[in-house]
This record gives sequence, structure tokens and C-alpha cells, in this order.
Amino acid sequence: MKTFDIHPTDKSLESAIWQKIDNLNKPKGSLGRLEELAAQICLIQQTLTPSLSHPCHLLLGGDHGIEREGVSVSPREVTWQQMINFTRGGGGVNMFCRQHGFKLRIVDVGVDYDLSSFPDIINRKIGCGTKNFLYEPAMSEEEFNSAIQIGSDLVDECIEEGCRILSVGEMGIGNTSPSSIWMSLFGDIPLKECVGAGAGLDNDGIRRKYEVLKKSLEKYNKLYGQNGAINNTLCLSYFGGFEMITAIGAMLRAAERHVVLLIDGFIMTACALAAIRLYPASQDYMIFTHSGDEIGHKMMLDIVNAKPLLHLGLRLGEGTGALCAFPIIDSAVRMVNEMNNFENANITKYF
Amino acid sequence: MKTFDIHPTDKSLESAIWQKIDNLNKPKGSLGRLEELAAQICLIQQTLTPSLSHPCHLLLGGDHGIEREGVSVSPREVTWQQMINFTRGGGGVNMFCRQHGFKLRIVDVGVDYDLSSFPDIINRKIGCGTKNFLYEPAMSEEEFNSAIQIGSDLVDECIEEGCRILSVGEMGIGNTSPSSIWMSLFGDIPLKECVGAGAGLDNDGIRRKYEVLKKSLEKYNKLYGQNGAINNTLCLSYFGGFEMITAIGAMLRAAERHVVLLIDGFIMTACALAAIRLYPASQDYMIFTHSGDEIGHKMMLDIVNAKPLLHLGLRLGEGTGALCAFPIIDSAVRMVNEMNNFENANITKYF
Repeated sequence: MKTFDIHPTDKSLESAIWQKIDNLNKPKGSLGRLEELAAQICLIQQTLTPSLSHPCHLLLGGDHGIEREGVSVSPREVTWQQMINFTRGGGGVNMFCRQHGFKLRIVDVGVDYDLSSFPDIINRKIGCGTKNFLYEPAMSEEEFNSAIQIGSDLVDECIEEGCRILSVGEMGIGNTSPSSIWMSLFGDIPLKECVGAGAGLDNDGIRRKYEVLKKSLEKYNKLYGQNGAINNTLCLSYFGGFEMITAIGAMLRAAERHVVLLIDGFIMTACALAAIRLYPASQDYMIFTHSGDEIGHKMMLDIVNAKPLLHLGLRLGEGTGALCAFPIIDSAVRMVNEMNNFENANITKYF
Repeated sequence: MKTFDIHPTDKSLESAIWQKIDNLNKPKGSLGRLEELAAQICLIQQTLTPSLSHPCHLLLGGDHGIEREGVSVSPREVTWQQMINFTRGGGGVNMFCRQHGFKLRIVDVGVDYDLSSFPDIINRKIGCGTKNFLYEPAMSEEEFNSAIQIGSDLVDECIEEGCRILSVGEMGIGNTSPSSIWMSLFGDIPLKECVGAGAGLDNDGIRRKYEVLKKSLEKYNKLYGQNGAINNTLCLSYFGGFEMITAIGAMLRAAERHVVLLIDGFIMTACALAAIRLYPASQDYMIFTHSGDEIGHKMMLDIVNAKPLLHLGLRLGEGTGALCAFPIIDSAVRMVNEMNNFENANITKYF
């Protein structure tokens, strides 16, 4: 796959950042998480006056062969129906993008339906859904490389418009299944603990989903698992969806280009975990925005020591958790840019 | 005191509200807390198309006699210095109000400093700080009644401008002390568990604060405590600050007039608890926005079964927690007003 030149943020600015934050006219530390966020964004952008100009949201759509096994509560056609719905402005993601001024890019990277007649859907289709990983790899190496490249290119297009903050969302019926498998492989967690309800399976459904994923993983391990060692890119292409690999490409390119990156739900966290396994330094550029109720999401967040900003029980997908958290991140940046300090406000420093 | 005509929200609309929410094009329940918020606001406004027009923030300032006992990390003069700072736009509260389009009303109800030359500070001064409740009641019955009336009048002024959502914040060095005592009295919780660090006391400071409050409470109980019965208005006027009683008046009037009411930190939660004890139905109109780290804040929230929206470690006061949560409440209202339903989006209903 394409390589990325990703470095940890340069921490030499850290003391200057905290000096500025601690001298704002408020008791030290009294803006809690906002202060941590501000410091992170200052480090990402290497400045004491950060900016969140031109926020962009990538909404990546793709279908999954594994959906044929009945692992999802929703039928496959919901993917394309929702993609079209997003072009009409009536989805959850549309509402959040309007509210917070995000430019929404709806991208078809693998939907099993001809969406080419919709001018508001960017056509980067790699295939009409992935193959069924119960029987064979979800995608070829070429397809994997294409998806990474497409994700990277999409971020470049955003940056050309001035984008300094990016969120990534997905629409893909069935995509909690590969996410669970990645979580198990990358997090070294028993598969059973990684399989949850998705968009609303009941207990029978969860059991069936687990059985399908267990069989898939056993086959993969028999073919490729050598003493438990993980071949990162192989397990990505074997199980992943086109929208998920594209998301990883986007995340890595965002980190390479010092764009603030918002990560939300179970699927995007699985992609972020994969990105971090490929390039550990990419985590410096990520803000984990929301912890959902999907079993294992919290576990995944713990693996990377992430403390998500919100716990609002959202499980819609589409990147809505990231969008929902944006104003808090915006508050953090405004704090560091707009609040007076003790000197220019003529206030007795509290302590 | 003035009486308020506060009724529980009329629940007969509830099934229609949930029918609308459940038919939006998303898996049922998948917008979590946003759905609960939307339902609450629909009930408050008795409509399926709620509105948050003309949000207003009341920032109420007052000083406290008890501050003379060294119960606060910050000196008294910080109250007036910050009030002036707020008129210049450089405080935390200003930044949040600008970000979220709140009209900020800065009101002096009891600051120990002449602020009358500042046209941007509304002058409703009841006194130059309260008396020291270690020795005598903080305010007279007349002062208490004035504060309630002022709070009520301020809300009417907001409503005249079209305000449908209100948050209330405070600036008053020393005001965690009366809050702790109210929490103990109204929550029936041992005082020790109600006393915390305020804006940053160390352990010695907390111990000293506790001793002062314990002595004050013992004196009050000797004078007025009859078999543990609480005289609500008496313990409000005995310990409260002018800004706190004004806040209670504002909360009750907001509930009476069906205005959505945002409650944030330790002090405002203590005021909300008092308002609920006076008029239990007022809670139907309250949204608890943020749980801080102040010991006892969570306990107070538990008393009224409140699940705050945010946990961001904010402890600045000024109502900043409420303002910080506003976009989430706005998202809830946008959800119910802007999202397509399954029929008009032509999407297979998920389940």
C-alpha cells in the first residue's frame, strides 16, 4: 500500500501553549476538557492561534458481502436508499452538517447500486459491494490499494478548499461485522466480546452474527494466522469494506497533513484503531468524539486510551457523533483565541 | 414570596411525539439522548415542531458575606472585576454566547461595588453583598422577595423578545458555600459530603470551609430547626446569595411560562434543587446540561434523577456548562424538525 509520512506532533510548543491557556482569565484548569482539546489542536497546527476553517465531512458508502449471511437487522438496499436520501438533505448527517457548517461530501466507493445519475454523489466506486468473507477475501490487493488512495485524494481535495478539520462517516449495511473482527484482531480481544447489536439485532441475531464471524475468522486464521501474528494490511483487505479502507486512507492522509481528525462510532473507531496500528503517530491528530452503546466500542477506546467527549447513546452512524461534538471542539479553539488573559482583563489572578 | 402557577407538562401529546420521532429515517432510538431531549422540548412547548428562538443567558452577579471567613480561593473583588470584564467580551461566558447566538444579560443584583457607570450591566442591585450567615441571616425577607421578583421580571423581558430557551449563570465569589448548605438541607445529605473545593481550594481550605459552614448550620438549626423540618424559604434567605435567589425566581418564572431551562454547575444545580423543592413540577422544564467535578454535584443530580448531558470537567461557573451543551439541544430540535421520515425518504423501514 501507499506509504504515509506521519510524525508525532512536535511537543516543543507545549509549554508555550499551556502558559497561554493557564493565563486566560479563569481559574486554572476550570475549562476542563476544553483546555486539553485546545492544547491538542495547537500542537497539531503548531500555533498558539489555531483555526478550524472549512470543516469537511466525508460520508463514505459501501456494501458488504457478509450482509448476505443475515448479520444485519437492515437489508442491503438501505445503503443505496440512504445515499440518495443524503443528497436530498433529509438524513441525520445532513442536519448536523447544516447546523455546524460542515461541507458534506457524499462518496460512493462501493455501493451495490448504480448511483451515477446523482450529481451530488461523488463517484469513486471500486466495486458493487465487497465479496463475502465467510468464503473468500472481501477485496483484492488492488482494490485495497485503490481505496487507500481514494481516501487520501479526498482529503487532499478538502485541504485545497482550506479544510483544517475533517470528520469521516460511513453508510454500509453490515459494516459492524468487519469492525468486530478488526477489533478482535487489532485489540487482541476474544471475538465474543467484540460482537454487538449493530443497528438493533436481538439476542438471537447477535448469536447468529457471532457464529458467522467466528467461522470466518477461523478460516482466515487457518489460511494466514501464523502463531497469532497479524498481517495488518492482509486482515484489512480480507474483512474490510471499501468505505472502511477508504476511511483509513483518509485518516492517514489527514494525519500526514496535520488536519484535525474527528472519530466517532464503533465502525470509525475500528478504522482509527487500524490506522493507529499501521501508523501509531496518527493518533496525535485524532479526537475521539463519542462513545456509543455498541458492546466493545468502549473497549476499543480503552485500547488506545481515548476519552471520548460525548456519551449520548448515539448509534446512527454516518459520522453523526463526530459532527455532534464539533461545537465543543470549536469552543476549545475559541477559548484560546478569544478569551482575555488576566493582564488585559485587569483581574486579580485567582491563585 | 410571590407564588407561581407551575404545572407539569401535559403528557397527552407524548404518543404523537414519539410516533413522529420513531418514524424519522433512522433506526429506532439511534439518536439516543437527542430523542429524549426532543420529546421533552415538544412537551414543554406542546408542539411537534418545537423552536429554540432567541436564546437568552442571564448572568447574575452578587457578593457573599460568608466570603469574609476565607471560604473561597479567590478574593471578593474578583466578582466586580469579572462583571466589568464580561462587558468587554473577554470572559468565558462571552465566548460561548457569541458562539451559540445567546443574548447575554449581565445583571448586578448584589455586587459589592458601584457598577452603575457600566451601561452594559443591568442595575437591579438589592444590596452590596449579603450579610455573613456565620453570624446573621444573609438577607431579609424583603430582600428575598425582591430577588425572586427581579428574577421573574428578567425572564418576562426575555420572553417579550421572543425567548423560548433560557440559561442562567452566576458570578459570585463564595457562592459554593450557600450551595453546599442548601444541598445538605434540601438533599438531606451530611454537610461533610456537600463541601468541596469550589474554584480550587486545597485540603486545608476545604476543612476550614467545612468548619465555617458547620458552625453556621448549627446556629441556624438551633434557631429554626424543628425536628429536622425545613422551612424552604427561610433557609433560602438565611444562606442564599442575591444572585442565587434571583436565579430561583427566574427558573420558576421560566417554568411557569413554558420556557426551556438550562441548568449547569454546582451552584445553579443547588438553585434548581431549591426551585424543585418549592415547585416540584418546575423540573419538567429543566435540562441538566453538565456534571462537574465538584464533590456533591453528582449527588445533587442523583437526588432529582437528572442525567446531565455533558461531563467535560468544567468548573468555571458563569453558566458556561449550559451554554456549552446548547448545540446538542439544538440538534435534538433540528432532528425532529428537519429529518425526513421513512415515507418521504422512500427508505425501507429498518425494523
